Amino acid sequence: MIQASLSFEKGFSLPVLSQDECAPWLALARVKGLGGVGLKKLISRFGDARAVFSLLAPSDLAEVEGLHRDVVDEIVGFSDWAEVDAEIGRARTAGIAIVPFGAPGYPERLRMIADPPACLYIKGGLVAGDDRAVAIVGSRSSSDYGRRVARDLARGLASLGFTVVSGMARGIDGAAHESALQAGGRTIAVLGSGVERAYPAEHELLYRRIAAGGAVISELPIGTRPMAFNFPARNRLISGLSLGVIVVEATEKSGSLITAASALEQGREVFAVPGQVGSSRSRGAHRLIRQGAKLVETVEDVVEEIAPQLSARAAGARPAAPELAANASAAARTIFALLSDSSLHVDQVIEQTGLPVSRVLETLLELELQGLLHQAPGKIYSAAR
Amino acid sequence: MIQASLSFEKGFSLPVLSQDECAPWLALARVKGLGGVGLKKLISRFGDARAVFSLLAPSDLAEVEGLHRDVVDEIVGFSDWAEVDAEIGRARTAGIAIVPFGAPGYPERLRMIADPPACLYIKGGLVAGDDRAVAIVGSRSSSDYGRRVARDLARGLASLGFTVVSGMARGIDGAAHESALQAGGRTIAVLGSGVERAYPAEHELLYRRIAAGGAVISELPIGTRPMAFNFPARNRLISGLSLGVIVVEATEKSGSLITAASALEQGREVFAVPGQVGSSRSRGAHRLIRQGAKLVETVEDVVEEIAPQLSARAAGARPAAPELAANASAAARTIFALLSDSSLHVDQVIEQTGLPVSRVLETLLELELQGLLHQAPGKIYSAAR
Repeated sequence: MIQASLSFEKGFSLPVLSQDECAPWLALARVKGLGGVGLKKLISRFGDARAVFSLLAPSDLAEVEGLHRDVVDEIVGFSDWAEVDAEIGRARTAGIAIVPFGAPGYPERLRMIADPPACLYIKGGLVAGDDRAVAIVGSRSSSDYGRRVARDLARGLASLGFTVVSGMARGIDGAAHESALQAGGRTIAVLGSGVERAYPAEHELLYRRIAAGGAVISELPIGTRPMAFNFPARNRLISGLSLGVIVVEATEKSGSLITAASALEQGREVFAVPGQVGSSRSRGAHRLIRQGAKLVETVEDVVEEIAPQLSARAAGARPAAPELAANASAAARTIFALLSDSSLHVDQVIEQTGLPVSRVLETLLELELQGLLHQAPGKIYSAAR
Repeated sequence: MIQASLSFEKGFSLPVLSQDECAPWLALARVKGLGGVGLKKLISRFGDARAVFSLLAPSDLAEVEGLHRDVVDEIVGFSDWAEVDAEIGRARTAGIAIVPFGAPGYPERLRMIADPPACLYIKGGLVAGDDRAVAIVGSRSSSDYGRRVARDLARGLASLGFTVVSGMARGIDGAAHESALQAGGRTIAVLGSGVERAYPAEHELLYRRIAAGGAVISELPIGTRPMAFNFPARNRLISGLSLGVIVVEATEKSGSLITAASALEQGREVFAVPGQVGSSRSRGAHRLIRQGAKLVETVEDVVEEIAPQLSARAAGARPAAPELAANASAAARTIFALLSDSSLHVDQVIEQTGLPVSRVLETLLELELQGLLHQAPGKIYSAAR
């Protein structure tokens, strides 16, 4: 496995995958009609993106439940590998990391949403602590009041070690990123354009500072212009990356309400900041509160609500650990026990178990299909958590 | 039965009860240690206040469950009838109606709370529509914003035919009364002093206008000065008279939060108006919203929430109508049937049933104790609803 790494000022890094490893994921991202839902079905069936394109007979694809015939045809007929290679080249030139769904650097929380992107483009880098993230979103046409509250919340969350996620838009978003950076904290901007575009233009400097001290993320191909229809899909990533979403000032038609709706679908907490009755900028937030969003005045209100999730993680409590079936084979028991402590390359599994190669490959696939093992790119296996 | 009536500009009136009818209720109001809870026990056991003092052996009082021995002694030893008569004289002179718990003019909704006053002193008058009441309360040290919202809500509710209840304090209360009157609507002020006192002094004119176009109410004896310790008890009457309570601006120690707590205990709706984060005047309202109070921006938000109660009443739906026991006597059946359609004086019941006087009296008492009949002052009986 060829692996290099991009380094950044703050000492974090993202593995740079080889062209061979990235290409099938980028190809899946370009398959017409294949969304995140279909992607998850393919990967849980075939293990990784390469397998979808090369390891199986096309007829196997047709067996994946809920995958439309047209999508199967698109995958089987996919031929735009030159464009995929060009995209990888563009990313490398621009210092953009491509992180596929199957790669270790892909954010765990995002992997769990119903429709995750096949690939993330990242300027900057992610760190382990970024899973303690809270989103702050709101109107582009914000008031002084709204920006003040956004700044106070962002500063408070950043000081407590939370990563502040937002959309880098004018108004509330910009204020949130800015204050998180000023407080010396982490911040992530999720764009509705290609990740290389600092949009709006007035946020050029902010964009660079976020990329230097945090991450700018997009699922859209390099060069994609900021188009309104891409923003709702972008919003699901803002909530998907976060433990909760705080809506600060939102009109009744605000995109922030879409982010709040995504958050609810994804089981994230929704918070809203009240404002004065009669201010149209607060109407959306007030509606959310009436619908059950928690009213937020201070950072404590947010932490109080998400604390149970944090302490559950701290205590190592996870959704019921996967277990072997009672009738599992001896080979399955041996391999599962081996991988429950460490991540190993398939060759190491063969070597350390002393089992025949065919038996190991067969058992690994079986365990993976049962959701007990996770295969990372490079044929690295580990117990699923 | 001696009955006169005080007339007011708007054509409504309250019956003026005879001295004999009022006196025992005023006496009960003055019995040390007897609160509304004990009052309800006495009345449900003995039918009315007069019976408590005159019709029964003192030992019967001791049988009332939960009535403290000292209270029984206070009742048995009550002798301050001269002061009671003087109070009735003062009320008459000042044009104040005294409405005892047992009288028809006593607000039904207030009769249902756990600790209703034995008597209400009323300047002005109540009308049937006053049972469609909503309270608007809030800080004395209100902001322009808070008063503006209070005015908008009061005007809106008054225009929709709701009676606006408040405490006539400076700030939010005053703004609510004022706007209800300006909109040509009904408003009721509940005081924490004697009903004849226009407090604060700057609300002298407002007081007169409320008395002329609505009602000023207190449970406190004439001449009681406004003392802080009387205000919390007063607040239970504000919520008790209302379908719901709207809190507009309240600091975290505001008396309005006591009104909200009373409202919850009494099963009333609680509404709160949001404001800007950082304004201490909105902190109490925000806390209420976090605890489950409905966030209110417009009158529609209020009406939406209380509409089910209104339409249930409009449709005539009531808590299960009282029914005679299967083994009820023939006399009980005859009398109950007679009174199910009309309210009759005891002499009319005797005349129309042709039953012996002793039998009628015995049966009426029996039905009343079973909660099937209601006796209004002047020995007027009707079916309980």
